[in-house]
Amino acid sequence: MKIGLCQTMIQKEMDKNLESASKHIAIAHEQNAEMVILPEMFAIDYSLQNIKKSAQKLKSGEKIYDFLSEQSKKYNITLIGGTVAELTDDNKIYNTCPIFKNGEFIAKYSKIHLFDVDIKNKITFKESSVLSAGDKITTFDLNNTKIGVAICYDIRFAEQAIKMADLGCEIIVYPTAFSLVTGPYHWELTARARALDSQSYVCAVCTARNMELDYKTYGHSIVCDPYGQIVFQMGIEEETRIFEFNKNRVKEIREEIPMVNWRKANKACW
Amino acid sequence: MKIGLCQTMIQKEMDKNLESASKHIAIAHEQNAEMVILPEMFAIDYSLQNIKKSAQKLKSGEKIYDFLSEQSKKYNITLIGGTVAELTDDNKIYNTCPIFKNGEFIAKYSKIHLFDVDIKNKITFKESSVLSAGDKITTFDLNNTKIGVAICYDIRFAEQAIKMADLGCEIIVYPTAFSLVTGPYHWELTARARALDSQSYVCAVCTARNMELDYKTYGHSIVCDPYGQIVFQMGIEEETRIFEFNKNRVKEIREEIPMVNWRKANKACW
Repeated sequence: MKIGLCQTMIQKEMDKNLESASKHIAIAHEQNAEMVILPEMFAIDYSLQNIKKSAQKLKSGEKIYDFLSEQSKKYNITLIGGTVAELTDDNKIYNTCPIFKNGEFIAKYSKIHLFDVDIKNKITFKESSVLSAGDKITTFDLNNTKIGVAICYDIRFAEQAIKMADLGCEIIVYPTAFSLVTGPYHWELTARARALDSQSYVCAVCTARNMELDYKTYGHSIVCDPYGQIVFQMGIEEETRIFEFNKNRVKEIREEIPMVNWRKANKACW
Repeated sequence: MKIGLCQTMIQKEMDKNLESASKHIAIAHEQNAEMVILPEMFAIDYSLQNIKKSAQKLKSGEKIYDFLSEQSKKYNITLIGGTVAELTDDNKIYNTCPIFKNGEFIAKYSKIHLFDVDIKNKITFKESSVLSAGDKITTFDLNNTKIGVAICYDIRFAEQAIKMADLGCEIIVYPTAFSLVTGPYHWELTARARALDSQSYVCAVCTARNMELDYKTYGHSIVCDPYGQIVFQMGIEEETRIFEFNKNRVKEIREEIPMVNWRKANKACW
């Protein structure tokens, strides 16, 4: 199974962002990707204000929903639609990753761990002032493989990756807009650690770095193998790259280092 | 609070190993260490056979117990006594870390996740064929700081470090005999990841590398800060180094990136 990671460059205008996403999905498709991953908030310039302004329902007739559905249908792919500011019927907003397969909406994941940080003189961000937190793990099946989805700041929480592996996932996908402040310290470390913790492949897709925007991202979209090693890592420019999933490697590592045996045995300890 | 990490060189004879431990504890004491950490199975050449052969009770009158108690008393230090093959009254053997303060036995931790691996053409080890697994997390208090103890292979299990942080730990100590096979891939990664996961300091102490023994260790004893960065890392030779605990740094990082808020909120998700 070939998986395309699209590190799209974000601009201020939503139409340009959809255009860029569309261009990169096409590149992934040309290289025979069956599944394509967009980054977090791929349609907007990431800010609390723009999250609020862009919030829309996840249903037919809404701009981003229709865009993702059409792209997925056009190429007959499974599309992990980055994330969208999802407006719900009770007027809450979630940071939600919608997943489409051949045009059909098949699943969604709403970010559980919202990005609330206050790093002295560097970055203050409080997603929870605008967004509501999800409370459900999301997994879906593709080609006899279970795939888990989480979003950006979630990658700091090992317990979520471990839980997804426990549910049978062999690939964990993180659409992200990882901050340039913490990226140099924590990007590689968390991606590699979550892969090793869960003995799964981790595909973490960030937006390309645009220094003209207020919120600057780290880029460096990355794939790590279930041994915690880097399969590839992009730079900071926009780029689409293909990762070929190796199911045998997951099996092999889980047999060589059977962590799950202890996890089963020791549930009672925690 | 100054903490001494003793990367002792293991030889085949127990007396030489105790002598080496004694020498390094003295070096740590000279540099004003209040707490000193020895590596896993510091008294024996690590093998299933030697674990069995050396197993002894953790009580006064037994060789390793008396050694640790005396060393701790002699220097008025808290001594994290690496690990010992602990023989219990019901004839089980545990990989146990005994902790002494000023000569008094104050706590012990028995390894929960035993080292059972089977890496093709590289290493096969099955601690569980000789050892029984512990089932309790261990923490203790020193100078108004809670310290958690786990052992070697435990470092692969994020959930244990997270649980210790949840219990209030700000330092997590891992006596280890990390294998030379997996060390190059996983040593730094797991030490840094557990520090970042728990937003605590991690002190992971390995034995020095002795290429004359069958079981070869990685060395590279390491301290990581609660931001997941390396404070220092030793080489492969025997060495004792001092780490000065910075309680403010723990507080600062936990305030800047308040992961615990989500952990509290989301207990129900898992």
